[in-house]
Amino acid sequence: MEETDMVIDQLIEQIQQKQNPCIAGIDPDWRKIPDCCKTAISPADSVARWAMDVIDAIADVVPAVKPQAAFFEVFGSDGFRALERTVAHAHRRDLIVIDDSKRGDIGSTSEAYARAHLAPDGPINADFMTVSPFLGPDSLAPFMTAAARWGKGLFILVKTSNPGSAELSESIHSSGQKLSRWLGDYVRTAGHDLRGKHGYSSIGAVVGATFPGEAAHLRKLMPDSFFLVPGFGAQGGSADDALPCFNPDGLGAVVSSSRGVLYPHLTSPDFSGTESAYLDLVRTQALIMRDSMRSALDNQR
Amino acid sequence: MEETDMVIDQLIEQIQQKQNPCIAGIDPDWRKIPDCCKTAISPADSVARWAMDVIDAIADVVPAVKPQAAFFEVFGSDGFRALERTVAHAHRRDLIVIDDSKRGDIGSTSEAYARAHLAPDGPINADFMTVSPFLGPDSLAPFMTAAARWGKGLFILVKTSNPGSAELSESIHSSGQKLSRWLGDYVRTAGHDLRGKHGYSSIGAVVGATFPGEAAHLRKLMPDSFFLVPGFGAQGGSADDALPCFNPDGLGAVVSSSRGVLYPHLTSPDFSGTESAYLDLVRTQALIMRDSMRSALDNQR
Repeated sequence: MEETDMVIDQLIEQIQQKQNPCIAGIDPDWRKIPDCCKTAISPADSVARWAMDVIDAIADVVPAVKPQAAFFEVFGSDGFRALERTVAHAHRRDLIVIDDSKRGDIGSTSEAYARAHLAPDGPINADFMTVSPFLGPDSLAPFMTAAARWGKGLFILVKTSNPGSAELSESIHSSGQKLSRWLGDYVRTAGHDLRGKHGYSSIGAVVGATFPGEAAHLRKLMPDSFFLVPGFGAQGGSADDALPCFNPDGLGAVVSSSRGVLYPHLTSPDFSGTESAYLDLVRTQALIMRDSMRSALDNQR
Repeated sequence: MEETDMVIDQLIEQIQQKQNPCIAGIDPDWRKIPDCCKTAISPADSVARWAMDVIDAIADVVPAVKPQAAFFEVFGSDGFRALERTVAHAHRRDLIVIDDSKRGDIGSTSEAYARAHLAPDGPINADFMTVSPFLGPDSLAPFMTAAARWGKGLFILVKTSNPGSAELSESIHSSGQKLSRWLGDYVRTAGHDLRGKHGYSSIGAVVGATFPGEAAHLRKLMPDSFFLVPGFGAQGGSADDALPCFNPDGLGAVVSSSRGVLYPHLTSPDFSGTESAYLDLVRTQALIMRDSMRSALDNQR
């Protein structure tokens, strides 16, 4: 992958090559990681090794991985180092990395977050990061500038998958629209000049699969924006629920599962406890998720 | 300071002892830190040493410091380590630490952020952290639980100081209120059971000094909540602008300045370039801020 390519094009090419819009969240929850993966010198080192092993197990199946910053941060500076190593390893396996950190601040602080997470010479160098719009459009501008400058991308929170998300997103903006729609307008407009060769913009939206009606509306509102769709599996969303997030071309969304892919051993009565058995289960879950999304998309055509 | 004390009481006692509600942001911006403070083996090490020197210069003047996570994160895992060291040093100097990280997510992810930033046995162990409410009340619940469990505190973003903050905060919630007011209601209600011996709650609100009318309204709405007021100095807020954030008892707010306190050498034509001259300037700025806020509060009585 050349750094001058736009990451949105690379993401689409990965999706097309693997015929799979499903991505794996990388949420290292110490209580859930199997003991066979806890053999390194420190918890954070175990986490890094576990994340790299999981990535190796699914690298030919998924187009992208989505490390969740919180689960690395909880291990402090060593955890941050594990995140850096995880991203670097995903890149070695030609995977796109969506850094799910939901940062948001103003001015030079937003600039520092963008540099920390997206700069090619920064510590993480992710391809995309998630960003919270709470502080308003001026708070997003430094992230937009950074994405344009480095050919990177953003997923801006528009409508998240949790029940309480409605409190803010259904509030009415001064333009008369729901906030989720107004944010959708912002994402479409702000991303217009950052479209890649496949017609999609580097500026995408986080849209939960748990509100399919709203997702369908937002899909029409932002035809050129990719959706990052969390909540597949554990949060109650199904492959069919995610369909409204896709365009008729079968593109336009990546659907993410974390717990369902990472921790199948917890619900597998036959799990032998070995690392290879664990990684087989992880790979099987990634294939199941891919196939169920594929067939839902095929049935829709 | 005993860990079983509520941090809100410790903050108030620091404010009373130093007769100063003004706190210093710790925003290590590499382009602005003077060369005399860049002598350590790595940039992140220089940042840690600089932050500790700044803290020593103002520890008897300010009740609290507010490190800005982004400016540490930009140095990666080494920067995260510098943040950990900065917080530990502030605690050695009996200062309250407000970790300005504006985190926000859902469920176990919020739990991980709370643990990372607030847990007594966690890597940072701050006294307060700032939290973004974009994802709704259910996203804040794990932070509330963490604060209650560890005797720590939160400052929830309600109305920030940047011009664009109005886009979301002036939107109308389904209850018919502006979002800022609805969030204020949430902060008051959620914080009710976490009040300390001085009557103030451990759950506070971030309220910008740049919208004094709105601040006055929010002050009445949340009589028991402390306000974290950014924007003093560099962002255009004055001591008089911050007055509506205080209660008649002279308490209820901490007013924060970062650039104004940290980088006075950039606008001091006589700056000799030595570290002691630099730290003198920092201390002088902290004293000026204290005195200007003190006299504004005195004049109001």
